[in-house]
Amino acid sequence: MQCFVPFAVERPKTRLSEVLTTAERRVFSEAMLADVLTALDGVSLDGDAPDPTVLATAPVDVDVPVVVDERPLDPAVNDRLDSVPTAIVMADLALATPDALERLISAPGDLAIAAGLGGGTNAFVARDAAFHVDYHGASYRDHLAIATDAGLDVTEVDSRRLAVDIDEPADLTELLLHGGGAARDWLVDNGFELATGGGRVRAVRE
Amino acid sequence: MQCFVPFAVERPKTRLSEVLTTAERRVFSEAMLADVLTALDGVSLDGDAPDPTVLATAPVDVDVPVVVDERPLDPAVNDRLDSVPTAIVMADLALATPDALERLISAPGDLAIAAGLGGGTNAFVARDAAFHVDYHGASYRDHLAIATDAGLDVTEVDSRRLAVDIDEPADLTELLLHGGGAARDWLVDNGFELATGGGRVRAVRE
Repeated sequence: MQCFVPFAVERPKTRLSEVLTTAERRVFSEAMLADVLTALDGVSLDGDAPDPTVLATAPVDVDVPVVVDERPLDPAVNDRLDSVPTAIVMADLALATPDALERLISAPGDLAIAAGLGGGTNAFVARDAAFHVDYHGASYRDHLAIATDAGLDVTEVDSRRLAVDIDEPADLTELLLHGGGAARDWLVDNGFELATGGGRVRAVRE
Repeated sequence: MQCFVPFAVERPKTRLSEVLTTAERRVFSEAMLADVLTALDGVSLDGDAPDPTVLATAPVDVDVPVVVDERPLDPAVNDRLDSVPTAIVMADLALATPDALERLISAPGDLAIAAGLGGGTNAFVARDAAFHVDYHGASYRDHLAIATDAGLDVTEVDSRRLAVDIDEPADLTELLLHGGGAARDWLVDNGFELATGGGRVRAVRE
């Protein structure tokens, strides 16, 4: 199945600027992208395995094909949805595992979709070209409405690993707790560790 | 399957005290408990459906049996794990659906376990009496270690709906976005609504 992984090269992860410099955010983002590509590579679905292409805003060095599209996310993704089935998987899903992606890709329906925390849409498979994206605001609800208005069957894929995109400092906690790839290694190598106290565990930097 | 839903009657949801009064937190907590019980009631697994009991620190008015145990959570839960299989489902999983709980209860292994955000343990099914709980700190990791040390087979259940416990103000966003029961209704009736802006959607009060 064709699968695009959108990746913003120039201004990666601005909401992590409290805890990471611009240069660090770039390296960290590339580590997350590598983890997503590794997870996609681990999906074993006969005849339906994802065949990823990075849909980047500028050239990027990865082991899979790259398509450069400088436009905003919506038109860049929507052009790829003209042919289906197509999977779209965000590049910051550093907790994604082959199992979680298999559940998404093998889920039935014209649209199989996984919510992100905070109302976003982290991954989906469109099997009907009537679906299109609008990532502004609470996109998950909007995407359900777009699909419903087009008469599409929707399967909501309930996955923590696909729900946690790494956008904000609190998300680093989830990556330290549950990650197993390059992005988690990078955090550990750069001084991040878990702090336990009252309530939830937090990520702190030495 | 016997199933206990631990519920703290006296000091519910202290981490929501920024946005809710003590009296409000009590009513809201009971609404979440009711939602969890409704979701459990909707699980349709022949012969293996959960048979819930509320494990409360004081009497509480619900439609299922209540066992009052004034001790801290760990000993109260551990006593119930002497006989297995036993499911433990937290009372603040206001996004839980019958489907998500079915995945947990039908998952294989001596321990099927669902992580919460921030390192907690939100729900599990123990099928071997060697398992016991220790909810202090990053309990999810500790629980995996306890199970592994006891030689148990563990299945990690990957569910956003079981991962989001409603502990902190940011969690109210998830409830407004994805909830469908009494707790979400209570929030809406009491002035909470979604605010969209840059980044993730937030819950705000009028």
